[in-house]
Amino acid sequence: MEENEFEELYALVNSGRLQKLKAQLVEMAYPDIAEFIMNIDDEKTAVKVFRIMPKDISADVFAYLDPENQHMIVRLITDREIERLMDDLYVDDAVDFLEEVPANVVRRVLENTDSETREIINRFLKYPENSAGSVMTIEMVELHDTLTVGEAIKNIRRTGVDKETIYTCYVIDKGRHLVGTLPLRRLLLNDEDTPIRDIMSDDERLIYVTTLDDQEDVAAIAKKYDLLSIPVVDKELRLVGIITIDDIVDIIDDEATEDFEKMALLRPSESEYLKTNVFTLAKNRIVWLLVLMVSATFTGQIIEGFEMKLATIAGLTACIPMLMDTGGNAGNQVSTLVIRGLALGEIKIKDYFVVLWKEIRVSVMVGITLAVVNYVRMLIIRGITHSETSNSVILCVCLSIICAVMVAKMIGCTLPIIAKMLKLDPALMAGPMITTMVDAISLLIYFAIANALIPA
Amino acid sequence: MEENEFEELYALVNSGRLQKLKAQLVEMAYPDIAEFIMNIDDEKTAVKVFRIMPKDISADVFAYLDPENQHMIVRLITDREIERLMDDLYVDDAVDFLEEVPANVVRRVLENTDSETREIINRFLKYPENSAGSVMTIEMVELHDTLTVGEAIKNIRRTGVDKETIYTCYVIDKGRHLVGTLPLRRLLLNDEDTPIRDIMSDDERLIYVTTLDDQEDVAAIAKKYDLLSIPVVDKELRLVGIITIDDIVDIIDDEATEDFEKMALLRPSESEYLKTNVFTLAKNRIVWLLVLMVSATFTGQIIEGFEMKLATIAGLTACIPMLMDTGGNAGNQVSTLVIRGLALGEIKIKDYFVVLWKEIRVSVMVGITLAVVNYVRMLIIRGITHSETSNSVILCVCLSIICAVMVAKMIGCTLPIIAKMLKLDPALMAGPMITTMVDAISLLIYFAIANALIPA
Repeated sequence: MEENEFEELYALVNSGRLQKLKAQLVEMAYPDIAEFIMNIDDEKTAVKVFRIMPKDISADVFAYLDPENQHMIVRLITDREIERLMDDLYVDDAVDFLEEVPANVVRRVLENTDSETREIINRFLKYPENSAGSVMTIEMVELHDTLTVGEAIKNIRRTGVDKETIYTCYVIDKGRHLVGTLPLRRLLLNDEDTPIRDIMSDDERLIYVTTLDDQEDVAAIAKKYDLLSIPVVDKELRLVGIITIDDIVDIIDDEATEDFEKMALLRPSESEYLKTNVFTLAKNRIVWLLVLMVSATFTGQIIEGFEMKLATIAGLTACIPMLMDTGGNAGNQVSTLVIRGLALGEIKIKDYFVVLWKEIRVSVMVGITLAVVNYVRMLIIRGITHSETSNSVILCVCLSIICAVMVAKMIGCTLPIIAKMLKLDPALMAGPMITTMVDAISLLIYFAIANALIPA
Repeated sequence: MEENEFEELYALVNSGRLQKLKAQLVEMAYPDIAEFIMNIDDEKTAVKVFRIMPKDISADVFAYLDPENQHMIVRLITDREIERLMDDLYVDDAVDFLEEVPANVVRRVLENTDSETREIINRFLKYPENSAGSVMTIEMVELHDTLTVGEAIKNIRRTGVDKETIYTCYVIDKGRHLVGTLPLRRLLLNDEDTPIRDIMSDDERLIYVTTLDDQEDVAAIAKKYDLLSIPVVDKELRLVGIITIDDIVDIIDDEATEDFEKMALLRPSESEYLKTNVFTLAKNRIVWLLVLMVSATFTGQIIEGFEMKLATIAGLTACIPMLMDTGGNAGNQVSTLVIRGLALGEIKIKDYFVVLWKEIRVSVMVGITLAVVNYVRMLIIRGITHSETSNSVILCVCLSIICAVMVAKMIGCTLPIIAKMLKLDPALMAGPMITTMVDAISLLIYFAIANALIPA
């Protein structure tokens, strides 16, 4: 929905025609209503709009608000309204919201939640961050394994309204152990008298995760098996919750964003860029910049040790940035491919030598091509600028390019895989990290070749 | 499923106990069967395993094979088997497969497809790459708007087996125009006699895309509204297909991978790293490396123009790499944040000045911190190495760091937004691109400050 379509709704708010507004809102999709409310500048007006929504809609809309707006709404509504809201929210949405607001708000909200829900929420808040337990919900359809298809459908009709999804049902035994899954589709396409035991997926095809599994692994499983929801079990294989595909989609996006951030040397941040304050942004960036700046001391020392030669031979210094950048870019290319391949499970640790052998061949091709083009480039520039760059300097630069590209490609594919072996995040071994290493090594190569080719 | 769990199955293949194998396979999930087949080295054995699967399973498994293995299977099975396979495949899976195999295979497959399916496939193959039309499927549940709930459920029971999803039904009028959507859930929870017109989502809440919409936009809509499938309409708003959530998940991953690749200066590749040959890998990398290498001519010229001073003043050259890397890293951080924010729709073009103002403040904080640490670092190094680096050189470096970080941050947030305005992909304005510009500008600043502070 475009923002200018909201204009009409704003007009209704401003002129106080709230019944008309309500009639419009109930026709809209929840994310659009949430967007409309988030776009209202005045807090009191926003809460007024939130309040006029029918009870059954307001919790759904609340779940689509961002944490700042959820916080604002909760601050301005009564305890009684909080109680009703918490009653209507799905547990995963309630937990998401409570994880983002200050402790005093959490306290006030939990005080106004009935004891059963409060207990569940407290249990959920204790699951480790990014675990399956922390993103699951408990509103799933459970069917006992003794039912028939007809009984199961009747059960779903009776209880389905409150469930987050009814499209996959979970079959449990007397001890609440997960014994099978049953898509609603299969229920509907089978005869009423069929026992559900006979048509449920079990054994090999029963796919589940445990509460402590990492959300990234959960997303990979959902993706592989094209699941609309995944059951979550405890250590005794008892069904405790499900994770639905809409949360899986969010996880996939969040994990990619986290990798982007790590690869750009940013401390992963929880909130959107525009909502993060300047101080936090600076803090998230400074650590790695400092580390890399200090580690550039090595390149500085290498150059200082060579300063005499650089000072006397024309053109040698001028090529340093080009050499460093080319090496860095070449390494960056391969580390990105390997990091992404590892994240998607397309590359595994055992593939290391296959990758390395590939990269050696690629780097020879790329290195030679770059060296040839650079040779021509330097000849042309010398012709135009009448500089004193000698043939041996040009040759020295070209040979260094080939070596730098080869070293960069080898380091670029090795570091992420080593990180993976050490159970570190491969994303940390991206561009800037590689650049710093490649810089130092290519300077050493450059100067070694210069020493060999150019007499002092 | 772990690879060692396949051992038992291999043993059955090798000892020729195919009936036992078949019994095991039908208990497995399709992606696992596909993985098992892809792990068989011998082509003939792989096809043998593919053939023993019951007809209703083999098309589903085929859809999970990667293009190389699909190609191999089709090469080794009979025309008759191809006909049956094409009949059982969902249209989107058939199109995915045909897009990846050589033209002669496409011809043979289409010759063995019934004319109706062939016509549909040919139409699908003509949709532009990455458009909604190219990823949609036609196996959806269509309900005429005159039905009641009871009639609709009966309709689904009768036709549902062949549909890719039955969980969202699409309501059409006599002219096949899309007039509403209806989740199966709502059908099931309503009274049999209710006309579906009364309970379907229409008007504001009717969400659809057109065949030519970009798949990235489709994914964003599915994500925003938490949809399990999206209807696709033609220019006259007639329903022509749907896109299901499993394809949306793949699109989200593919688009993120493409951004990773572009940001690392790689030509986006269609296939997985391990399956791409060395020549293609080299080709995908070389263009941008060349462009940036040649554009480094500028930095070379800047340094050459300053070579006299660099040669006479100790310590000035040694700091060039550190200065360049720090500027590049600082720019890279912000461009990554902005590119990702634009991709996820969290940042819009109109937010430019908000972003710029944020970055100016962040860069002052970051720049000053780095400069102070660098000051201490250089004093310590001078103490240890007894080098001749003068106080004015140190001061000059520290001031340059502050300027370089500020310039880098401003360029880093500006270029991606300009790209977006010009309808280019912001991902191209990532790290290495920024680095090259920042390199040149920070060198100019560095030398200007050096000229001002240090007498010749």
